[in-house]
Amino acid sequence: MELQRMIARFVAEPAPFTQQALYLARRSILDTMGAMIAGSETAAVRQALTVTEGGGCTVPGRSEKLCGRDAAFVNGISGHELELDDTSSSNLGHPTVAVLPALLAIGEETGCSGRLLLEGFLIATEVTCKLGRICAKRLHAKGWHCSSVTAGIGAAAGCAYLLGLSQEQTSHALGIAASMASGLRENFGTQTKSIHIGKCAEDGYRAARLAQAGFTSSTVALEGKEGFLYEYADLREEGDEFHRIMASMGHDWDICAPGFTLKRWPSCSSTHRPVDGIMELIRINQLSAAEIESIRAGLGISALRELVTPNPADGEEAKFSVGFQIGLYLTGRANAPENYNRETIRLPEVQNIIRRTELYHEPQYDNLPSDAGVGPAFVTIRCKDGRTFIKERAFPVGHLSDPIPDEELRKKFFICTAAKLTPERARALADAIMALELLENIRTLMAMTH
Amino acid sequence: MELQRMIARFVAEPAPFTQQALYLARRSILDTMGAMIAGSETAAVRQALTVTEGGGCTVPGRSEKLCGRDAAFVNGISGHELELDDTSSSNLGHPTVAVLPALLAIGEETGCSGRLLLEGFLIATEVTCKLGRICAKRLHAKGWHCSSVTAGIGAAAGCAYLLGLSQEQTSHALGIAASMASGLRENFGTQTKSIHIGKCAEDGYRAARLAQAGFTSSTVALEGKEGFLYEYADLREEGDEFHRIMASMGHDWDICAPGFTLKRWPSCSSTHRPVDGIMELIRINQLSAAEIESIRAGLGISALRELVTPNPADGEEAKFSVGFQIGLYLTGRANAPENYNRETIRLPEVQNIIRRTELYHEPQYDNLPSDAGVGPAFVTIRCKDGRTFIKERAFPVGHLSDPIPDEELRKKFFICTAAKLTPERARALADAIMALELLENIRTLMAMTH
Repeated sequence: MELQRMIARFVAEPAPFTQQALYLARRSILDTMGAMIAGSETAAVRQALTVTEGGGCTVPGRSEKLCGRDAAFVNGISGHELELDDTSSSNLGHPTVAVLPALLAIGEETGCSGRLLLEGFLIATEVTCKLGRICAKRLHAKGWHCSSVTAGIGAAAGCAYLLGLSQEQTSHALGIAASMASGLRENFGTQTKSIHIGKCAEDGYRAARLAQAGFTSSTVALEGKEGFLYEYADLREEGDEFHRIMASMGHDWDICAPGFTLKRWPSCSSTHRPVDGIMELIRINQLSAAEIESIRAGLGISALRELVTPNPADGEEAKFSVGFQIGLYLTGRANAPENYNRETIRLPEVQNIIRRTELYHEPQYDNLPSDAGVGPAFVTIRCKDGRTFIKERAFPVGHLSDPIPDEELRKKFFICTAAKLTPERARALADAIMALELLENIRTLMAMTH
Repeated sequence: MELQRMIARFVAEPAPFTQQALYLARRSILDTMGAMIAGSETAAVRQALTVTEGGGCTVPGRSEKLCGRDAAFVNGISGHELELDDTSSSNLGHPTVAVLPALLAIGEETGCSGRLLLEGFLIATEVTCKLGRICAKRLHAKGWHCSSVTAGIGAAAGCAYLLGLSQEQTSHALGIAASMASGLRENFGTQTKSIHIGKCAEDGYRAARLAQAGFTSSTVALEGKEGFLYEYADLREEGDEFHRIMASMGHDWDICAPGFTLKRWPSCSSTHRPVDGIMELIRINQLSAAEIESIRAGLGISALRELVTPNPADGEEAKFSVGFQIGLYLTGRANAPENYNRETIRLPEVQNIIRRTELYHEPQYDNLPSDAGVGPAFVTIRCKDGRTFIKERAFPVGHLSDPIPDEELRKKFFICTAAKLTPERARALADAIMALELLENIRTLMAMTH
């Protein structure tokens, strides 16, 4: 295997950017830009801002301008802190938010075109996801935060592309980024999880800038004997399989197959399949809270492992509670960040639903191909009058098999940006992102984000 | 085990700082300050400076002033790039250079006293080394860069002390730093090795600043199920042993026992034992190059693993060549950075010695207690007239069992700083460091470093 060289060559000579890939890239950028603006007033962002330096780069949703690496860091935090950003089954994590802030920073510094940004974004997410296909399962099983271990390398690849680095410099950027990867899952459920993502974007930015300045790395920092794949994932060369995955870079763009899943709900992605399945049964059968005796959801071990707070005490824990979200739905409340709080959790009518909702282990969902992500949900609603409704939900709404229509995505964007942008400004920004190819200089775009 | 809490408590209520520990701390700071000034004109530092932001912190040896985290980053690179800085067998790496730049940055920003800096330095190196005693052997065997995986956590502890963080904030700083650890040994022999060290210092600085700003982490990010010790070193709780090591924090200050080894030569620490042993035999027996038939050095596997360039092609590789250094000595040349270059390597009289020098494996040195570091060297010189001289060198010159006298250390410092400071200024700086307890504000000191 010659993983690092294959990636560097891909960055130097990428595959054709298909219309479908470019379209889905615009959607993910729109969606994550909304998440960043929504997250720009969180405590994590305000705290992070105290440890930054000023410069020429924008923080969407805010008036501060930061130096490139701090913009990458802070925007990574803002885009992830509310769990509104998209996910990928290939890297078992968050493909967009960990790379986009780095690309925006480089793009704003260099004044790149919208088209170049889109291409850099496709390269960054592609490298992250193909690398994820090689090692994410091993990382996940060991306890690493998969996104934050793989995405810094993808971000470096995308930044190298925007900067026009040579193939050799790009290889050094990848090697430097490989030596910066980190992120412990033990820190999930704390603000450090968002630091992981901000750090990815920053590491990618910085690795590319350091390589541009002349820094050298090993040419096999990724696949060498004491390199990235072995140190983090205990993987030694497995020639054919890895080679096949990496050789597919840009041929099946990962954003098109299996695709990224955009979120309807500001909650852990493992809640989405059961929540969507249960909502569907309730809606189609026009069930009311009073009629329902019990709600059960069978899940694979990966999903169950993440949903450790079925009876949440606060808004952070509510992100991991299926019952809470069904409680919001059955009581006519929006599944939106403003309702993830102690007051709403404690409402008797919400508690009533939480108590009636149960998760259990469905072993048939445990060992599925990586495209299946954390696996389906098998949901059952029993009514007091004896009626029983069941549904298997293989993927959540937002997956490419059940995509959120552009208009719905815009609505989510307008909700996310409402506190920060006037409706006119939000519409203009959404239009600009959905027509990114036409933009001469992304500074124009960044000026519209706050 | 409750590792993270023990460290946070130690930072909040450290053990008494003994006179011996304070004295050895001053020596390590003097020595590493010299290394930073010597390294301040390297290509790596000039490259790194292109990716930095200005601020109030000094780069010893240079006129630029940087923001705190960039000062930590760049000074870590400058202090390590020439391999002149001290080493520790406890963390199988470099205890001082990966933490001192972070402390200097915080100290300069807050205007701390010399005494506080010394105390923070002892805390930072103590945490790094005790953590190293728990996991460095495992890290080394796996292929991690031990220093860079452990020292960011130590640096965070020292910075938390300088900032006066509460025990709880300190715990968060440790948890954040744990999620930033990285460094692949595959990148040894490239400039990225120095990035590892600069990044440690920067991570420590930033983790403390982020915790000060209110960021939270897991309270068991170090020892938890998916925490630092497991992810990097495959270590699960081994209660008594780990507890005993951590409970000894500050009781046997690691800088006193086993102590740090200060370097006489600008080369990989694994070359020092054989070089010192061979030089001793040559000096005592007044041997000339013409008399010598062969030189052999038996080494343990850890040392051999690092000395992979016995026939060096350039100055970087010469750092790992015993024969090259003996060639310098036998031809009357200084074992100093300015002679580590292609021209000197290619001199016939130097090549002649390189050819006559051989390393071989001495298995009895393979599995020694961690205090022994990479293990002894068994050296043999055979003369053309049949005489044979042998010597076992358990530790290099510079180890506490054969310390470099203060006056010799000052000489090394003056050589290191000669290109940057006048003799008067260098003397004044050395005096100030060796009397650090008397200094009211370390800004005075930093102003003397360039």
